[in-house]
Amino acid sequence: MLQFDLLATEGHARRGRLRLNHGVVETPIFMPVGTYGTVKGVLPRDLETMGAQIVLGNTFHLWLRPGVEVINAFGGLHRFECWTRPILTDSGGFQVWSLGEMRKISEEGVRFASPVNGDKLFLTPEVSMQVQTALNSDIVMQFDECTPYESKGQLTTEREARESMALSSRWAARCQTEFARLRNPNALFGIVQGGMFENLREASLDALVAMDFPGYAVGGVSVGEPKEDMLRIMAHTPHRLPANKPRYLMGVGTPEDLVEGVAQGVDMFDCVMPTRNARNGHLFTRFGDLRIRNAKNKTDQRPIDETCGCYACKAAGGSAGGGFSRAYLHHLDRCGEMLGPMLSTIHNLHYYLNLMHEVRDALEQGRFVAWRTQFKTDRTRGVDG
Amino acid sequence: MLQFDLLATEGHARRGRLRLNHGVVETPIFMPVGTYGTVKGVLPRDLETMGAQIVLGNTFHLWLRPGVEVINAFGGLHRFECWTRPILTDSGGFQVWSLGEMRKISEEGVRFASPVNGDKLFLTPEVSMQVQTALNSDIVMQFDECTPYESKGQLTTEREARESMALSSRWAARCQTEFARLRNPNALFGIVQGGMFENLREASLDALVAMDFPGYAVGGVSVGEPKEDMLRIMAHTPHRLPANKPRYLMGVGTPEDLVEGVAQGVDMFDCVMPTRNARNGHLFTRFGDLRIRNAKNKTDQRPIDETCGCYACKAAGGSAGGGFSRAYLHHLDRCGEMLGPMLSTIHNLHYYLNLMHEVRDALEQGRFVAWRTQFKTDRTRGVDG
Repeated sequence: MLQFDLLATEGHARRGRLRLNHGVVETPIFMPVGTYGTVKGVLPRDLETMGAQIVLGNTFHLWLRPGVEVINAFGGLHRFECWTRPILTDSGGFQVWSLGEMRKISEEGVRFASPVNGDKLFLTPEVSMQVQTALNSDIVMQFDECTPYESKGQLTTEREARESMALSSRWAARCQTEFARLRNPNALFGIVQGGMFENLREASLDALVAMDFPGYAVGGVSVGEPKEDMLRIMAHTPHRLPANKPRYLMGVGTPEDLVEGVAQGVDMFDCVMPTRNARNGHLFTRFGDLRIRNAKNKTDQRPIDETCGCYACKAAGGSAGGGFSRAYLHHLDRCGEMLGPMLSTIHNLHYYLNLMHEVRDALEQGRFVAWRTQFKTDRTRGVDG
Repeated sequence: MLQFDLLATEGHARRGRLRLNHGVVETPIFMPVGTYGTVKGVLPRDLETMGAQIVLGNTFHLWLRPGVEVINAFGGLHRFECWTRPILTDSGGFQVWSLGEMRKISEEGVRFASPVNGDKLFLTPEVSMQVQTALNSDIVMQFDECTPYESKGQLTTEREARESMALSSRWAARCQTEFARLRNPNALFGIVQGGMFENLREASLDALVAMDFPGYAVGGVSVGEPKEDMLRIMAHTPHRLPANKPRYLMGVGTPEDLVEGVAQGVDMFDCVMPTRNARNGHLFTRFGDLRIRNAKNKTDQRPIDETCGCYACKAAGGSAGGGFSRAYLHHLDRCGEMLGPMLSTIHNLHYYLNLMHEVRDALEQGRFVAWRTQFKTDRTRGVDG
């Protein structure tokens, strides 16, 4: 089940509402990544508290560990990971692509050795649909080939990108057939490929739109290309997708990338950046990024971001007020204490989720352009201001 | 400030109430250990939710990192670590003792090289009082020498234990003098030493009682001695301490040890066992201990302990009910996901804190002996029952 309502627009930017089997998602939305059935470093309860409406799971990883049988016994991923709101699962295509030389792609699918135990595995559009049906994710992604930006130092040629895109289109059709055969009650998204070539992006889009998916993703960006190429494809493809269906830009990106994506008509984003960077002491704030490992933080009594309402910045203070200090977070990092990544993850995810909350408010009130100008000004101010 | 009220007794066991500068502590109590100003793997908010009334900090570790100057700037450890309830700090004696050959003990104090950066350091009773005054902990421990059980394969002789105990007594007097000179507004505890020798324990106790400390600890147990020796000292010393003052058994122990300690008249316990074991997949339950890494847990849909009310066992279920499964925790452990230690830490700390809660209820109702029999029966049942 999927129902998408467009509530407001401003230029290409859209304020929407997505109804899925496990609940409603207000868009534009950022989706935290929960690769192995857990968003790294954060309790599901705290994800709910900070307003996460939908999380990702990785089909490839969950297929390997704990395996389909285990999750099947729980009736799907929701009960296994104790998450009651919607889940989107990717198809495994990006992960087998990331294996590089360790995998062999054919028309039928992708052969590879399990990086966990060396087992020989064969992932096909049909297997991906079967695994995602067992996961019972609200949004299922088609199995695709992620066209690389370059390979062995050579830029992908238009001919290579065309062949790759055409293979993904044929796999999209096989996914649709298998998804229907399995009577999967959720929603299957098609993925636009075509590399850095606008004509191929349009051909991919036309082929997928003809198949009438309930939602569409733009894949094959954030794969190592220069920023200007990413921005070029972001400016080209999203707004050409059907206006009455949700649009998902896969694997993007920085706060600036998300806001640019919204301006270009994207509704949904996912990225490991807030969680992974948190574990490396890289914190996102309204006024730019804060590297907690810098020695200047050793005695800094200020919270990460005084305008932030997350537990790390505010709620921790209690009657004392003020939240955890930069000095304390710096200390935790130096001592290798788990609480450092835990608090940083809460903060970064809250930042990303709240950013999209502000975007939604601005779109509802028809002031997204003005909001965006202020966003850019604030982000360049710096965290010592 | 310290005020101790004895509310009920049953044999040597005591139900009491301790008033400290940062709040009230109902005894008997287990105190989670927060070595570097954080109880490993758990948010302060969750510690409060699960009923932690007082936590530990380690003077030795905090002296090295972040250092006294940083914590001084925050007015003490409470604001630095965002914990508003009482804190007890140890004296650093146990940690310098743990350095083994790397330290040199004299009448004046202990010389050693910082394990963090190699700096030559000198810890004395006076320095320990100065650091603990900067930390502003509610309970300050005297600087003592922890008498070893054995050294280089040789059991500590009575003569060695006597000299060590006498040194600790002289240091107790110096601590008391320095604590008064610093006008520290908190409470200083003396520590009974004497190794495995009852006559030395009594001599130590008499000397400290003559100094009239507001509370007393039993140190030098859980230092590698056989269980029967530990139980012998636990049966000897605690109930001989002044009845109108709180009694703290340092570094002990298993759930069974805590209950035995209560029966012998102990009011306060601390141990790294619930937090450290959690990170190693060792979970405490009413029905015995659960090793989450065992393969049999791979498909086990039950929570850790069906009778447990912690977030991991209960609250996570929401409308779905039931909490996180053993299968999910097993999966998190196999994948090295942070959420595994996070949930296990919440569970183990909740178990220890709730155990003391049950003990307090039983003592209030004069049924501690019966409760203890049921506790032992339950703990031997096994987690597969």
